[in-house]
Amino acid sequence: MKKPVTTLCYIENDDSYLMLHRVKKKNDLNEHKWVGIGGHAEEGESPEDCLLREAREETSLTLTSYRFRGLVTFVSDKWGTEYMCLYTADGFQGILSDCDEGCLEWVPKKEIPRLNLWKGDLIFFRLLEENVPFFSLKLCYEGDRLILWQLNGMDMGADLPDEEKWKEILDSLRAI
Amino acid sequence: MKKPVTTLCYIENDDSYLMLHRVKKKNDLNEHKWVGIGGHAEEGESPEDCLLREAREETSLTLTSYRFRGLVTFVSDKWGTEYMCLYTADGFQGILSDCDEGCLEWVPKKEIPRLNLWKGDLIFFRLLEENVPFFSLKLCYEGDRLILWQLNGMDMGADLPDEEKWKEILDSLRAI
Repeated sequence: MKKPVTTLCYIENDDSYLMLHRVKKKNDLNEHKWVGIGGHAEEGESPEDCLLREAREETSLTLTSYRFRGLVTFVSDKWGTEYMCLYTADGFQGILSDCDEGCLEWVPKKEIPRLNLWKGDLIFFRLLEENVPFFSLKLCYEGDRLILWQLNGMDMGADLPDEEKWKEILDSLRAI
Repeated sequence: MKKPVTTLCYIENDDSYLMLHRVKKKNDLNEHKWVGIGGHAEEGESPEDCLLREAREETSLTLTSYRFRGLVTFVSDKWGTEYMCLYTADGFQGILSDCDEGCLEWVPKKEIPRLNLWKGDLIFFRLLEENVPFFSLKLCYEGDRLILWQLNGMDMGADLPDEEKWKEILDSLRAI
């Protein structure tokens, strides 16, 4: 049985993230969605062990600089609960290869909201861009619909924040 | 099957941590050891959901202020791999009750190294006291013996650091 612990990594280059368009796997939780690279931890692996292995397997790149940015508890009525260790990486070696699980593409950060994403991913992309301290984000879905999210244990409703709400959230995170 | 994701929390009061002496459960990974409170995440629970439930179940306390300090990957040749979300809590309400899993005791922080602990716990106790940013710590055991540890993906050998090594570690963590 696969562990419910996974890694999810957004590799950065200039102002782009390396995005994976999941169009190759059958019966895929992320079918047709754009996500980062990563996958399930294997027996005995730390999140960093898993991160480095998955980066090699999916991109042929060796990560040389990365940061653990947050833990995302992904709860789906269809797929169960997954604990995603969220990383960004800003250093790597090697030459990007094709990936069995989808199409890899460098996407400018400002174009990312136009992609077919899990809606809640917009929340962590903003938190990453704002460079807030480590966060714990819970995202609950019914099918594709975000029905509830929590940040560091605080209930945040179902909707994405407007700018006023974001200001409040960011102020409170930076005061920690 | 129990999820391999758990919480481990050290509740603080003055200069003490609330420690749990695990002397009540049979076939217990932690038998006779002193640990924090916590336990396995249940379906749909974020680490914070799990933390608050376990605190209530094991101590009758309601945590009102807590921080997610690190992720500990505990690898045992006997028990497999567990991902422990490590918290400290400095706010709580209620009256401390007995715990089914062991004896609860407030232990002054400076006396903690004298307790029967997992050896690697001394590493995270130091990291907590030094108030370093969020960390990922991997601890590998053969039986009771620490055979390898890693900090934020860096190999650190099998031994606990001496003071010189600690200075180097803390400087590098604070430079992140």
